Amino acid sequence: MKQIEKKSENKNYTAINIGNLEDIKSYSLIHAKTGKEVKGKVFVQRPTNATGTEISFTTLLPKSELGYFHKHNKNEEIYIILKGFGYFQVDEDCFPIKTGSIIRVAPEGVRSLCNTAEEEMVFICIQSKENSLEEHTTDDGQRIAFLPKWNNI
Amino acid sequence: MKQIEKKSENKNYTAINIGNLEDIKSYSLIHAKTGKEVKGKVFVQRPTNATGTEISFTTLLPKSELGYFHKHNKNEEIYIILKGFGYFQVDEDCFPIKTGSIIRVAPEGVRSLCNTAEEEMVFICIQSKENSLEEHTTDDGQRIAFLPKWNNI
Repeated sequence: MKQIEKKSENKNYTAINIGNLEDIKSYSLIHAKTGKEVKGKVFVQRPTNATGTEISFTTLLPKSELGYFHKHNKNEEIYIILKGFGYFQVDEDCFPIKTGSIIRVAPEGVRSLCNTAEEEMVFICIQSKENSLEEHTTDDGQRIAFLPKWNNI
Repeated sequence: MKQIEKKSENKNYTAINIGNLEDIKSYSLIHAKTGKEVKGKVFVQRPTNATGTEISFTTLLPKSELGYFHKHNKNEEIYIILKGFGYFQVDEDCFPIKTGSIIRVAPEGVRSLCNTAEEEMVFICIQSKENSLEEHTTDDGQRIAFLPKWNNI
């Protein structure tokens, strides 16, 4: 089983590396509720010490489906399809997805997806608490005059 | 300039498509504070009606850098490097990044990055309010018995 590589951190950041997209299938985890092994999936909230999101990377084998539908309690999910194509379903709506598809699902939406491609599907899923964001786009940012160190490496 | 394709939505979801990773460089936007055009970047909070995250996709040309450092007010950022390699800096720490690097930065961290590769760098940046997440991994989810419609398409 593949392990996440922790690179460096200080009080203001944590950096890890999970490998290439093709490596995601080598991760596995034990589902906290079912007790069963889930292959091809890795969560990064704990390894990165994230406090606003739970992000996971998942591989679906060629011609396969996730295998269950689920909804959420407090969290909105954003799915980003990086590779593969197939279908995504929310409640009674079923629609095609492919590379570049981004789907925002409200907590109460009953959701699942499948990969109908001959290649693996890789997708990112980002959980965050619904209605928690207060500042959007560049509104929350502030530019700072600072010297890059990479020119001296 | 490339436009986001809106696919479908109902009360519980919004689905869009931003195209292949190679297409990110064709997006541009006017920065709300500087009034200048920012090429190769697209934000998806508004198009997806997201309420917990502001997600952006950015292209850095070969052998180029972002060009500024910044920090945040309320929002944590998670950077996911999809393509390219180079360096990331937070405060005085400068470290190498490549495909699969994931960097969590606290609001007060002064950050920037560069692409030293001969190919474009593509990265995702996810803003969320620091300390807003209450439920992690699968704790917030609930499986629901539901019939997939894709078998009948």
